[in-house]
Amino acid sequence: VISLVENRQGDYKKILGELFPKTGKAFLLGITGPPGAGKSTVTDRLIAKLRAQSKRVAVVAIDPSSPFTGGAILGDRIRMQAHVGDDGVYIRSLGTRGKHGGLSHAAKDIATVLDAAGFDWVIIETAGVGQTELDILRLAHGIAVVLVPESGDGIQMMKAGLMEIADVFAVNKCDRPESDKIVREIMNTIGIGESLAGAQGGRWVVPVVKTEALHDKGIDELLKAIVDYYQYAVQSGHLDRKRKTFIRDEIIEILIEDLRYKSLSFFSTAPGQALIENVFLKKISPLEAATKVK
Amino acid sequence: VISLVENRQGDYKKILGELFPKTGKAFLLGITGPPGAGKSTVTDRLIAKLRAQSKRVAVVAIDPSSPFTGGAILGDRIRMQAHVGDDGVYIRSLGTRGKHGGLSHAAKDIATVLDAAGFDWVIIETAGVGQTELDILRLAHGIAVVLVPESGDGIQMMKAGLMEIADVFAVNKCDRPESDKIVREIMNTIGIGESLAGAQGGRWVVPVVKTEALHDKGIDELLKAIVDYYQYAVQSGHLDRKRKTFIRDEIIEILIEDLRYKSLSFFSTAPGQALIENVFLKKISPLEAATKVK
Repeated sequence: VISLVENRQGDYKKILGELFPKTGKAFLLGITGPPGAGKSTVTDRLIAKLRAQSKRVAVVAIDPSSPFTGGAILGDRIRMQAHVGDDGVYIRSLGTRGKHGGLSHAAKDIATVLDAAGFDWVIIETAGVGQTELDILRLAHGIAVVLVPESGDGIQMMKAGLMEIADVFAVNKCDRPESDKIVREIMNTIGIGESLAGAQGGRWVVPVVKTEALHDKGIDELLKAIVDYYQYAVQSGHLDRKRKTFIRDEIIEILIEDLRYKSLSFFSTAPGQALIENVFLKKISPLEAATKVK
Repeated sequence: VISLVENRQGDYKKILGELFPKTGKAFLLGITGPPGAGKSTVTDRLIAKLRAQSKRVAVVAIDPSSPFTGGAILGDRIRMQAHVGDDGVYIRSLGTRGKHGGLSHAAKDIATVLDAAGFDWVIIETAGVGQTELDILRLAHGIAVVLVPESGDGIQMMKAGLMEIADVFAVNKCDRPESDKIVREIMNTIGIGESLAGAQGGRWVVPVVKTEALHDKGIDELLKAIVDYYQYAVQSGHLDRKRKTFIRDEIIEILIEDLRYKSLSFFSTAPGQALIENVFLKKISPLEAATKVK
């Protein structure tokens, strides 16, 4: 079913409609951060902790790849092979082979399938550098941003839009020098002290957790911070509001995908080609032409 | 007019329609590359060379910024102040304050205005790391990718999609060690020797030019490579085909922008809210709901 959904094939729309009533139980956790921060290792360790609690965990790993060749670079995924053979773990890599905007839509639909399949946690892991990745993360209920001491450039993090989307920060590889510096930098940016992190009088103060995923250090604390956020989001009504915004955005995306498909079909016909030719010859403007697309 | 277009205000659509017949003369050059490669300095030097040829040059600089706060980080732009007071040079910075997909659409419209205003060259400068930036570069007639010796990681470049979109490569800061290594790497990836670069029997072989923009070295050669590409694109019919694809994509984007606007309006009404509530309560699926949007 996931392959059908990913490739927009067969009865996938009908299947999604049938699966939809079974959804709404999974927690969708986004994990992001700059390349090399150790996101896959952190994810791997979180899976182990969640499995120890008998939670079923699915991972959708979004691979950075060229939008032109459609080829995904799968290197990082290999590290997660530790969980191969465990029925309670499902890992799926997604390349950017989709059309413009198609990847975030496919990721959303795959999360829907995994939710319906009964996974307790669906982790969406992606390198948070571009608009596509941020679009994908919009479907998450909570977002953990993984940084490393070397990524301690406040401006760079702001550029990547990571500061605003984080519900929990993990400073990974914290055995390295400078790790306290980045923790302080993040806290300064958020504007709070460590003791205040967590749910505080109806609002959420983003915790900053130090981890060393390779040696399994700090992962219990990270998972606790994430679970705390989850509970806060449920109790404050934040999660429901988020879900409704997602629903709105998803409906709009469905409409856009449909419009794009129909328009491309039209432009491959003779009247469509003639319309482009008329704009090219400046007989009509693109805006006028838009009113004539069938 | 550019402010109206950027902010989607007033009669901007009408104005764009009126300007459209005056367009089609400018060469739209995209300049991209990883942060720190020296794109702004290269652009600055190219402007000086083009001004010496009495060409009028406009620059649209796309600033990396957060999609959440809408704030643009304008630091890099300050370097281009050398051209302040020159009527033949226009420089505009664009943040990502737009909605999803809005930035590339605004950039396209601003390029249209600058083209109609009689600029011979419109340079679109952007950090080529994400889908948004790649979408923006789609509107360019030719693309120069600026790299530095330190960016000599083939995988990283492929990930960023830079290899496929380049019409000309500049290896900047080539006084640094490792500069020959990256030149060789790029050539190996392209699969040719230096002597074959340029228009070759109806196809374009991407040239790799060594520059040291800070000391104005190699900029003449870089400009020549870009102008050669321009001439090749005109003569081969490649530019016309590109323009027609852009027209098609622009019309589709206009339709999508319109659909998004109308849908968001609908969802702010009571029937729209009720529709979201019904999906939230799983009475209907998002796909069904999409058929009911007015």
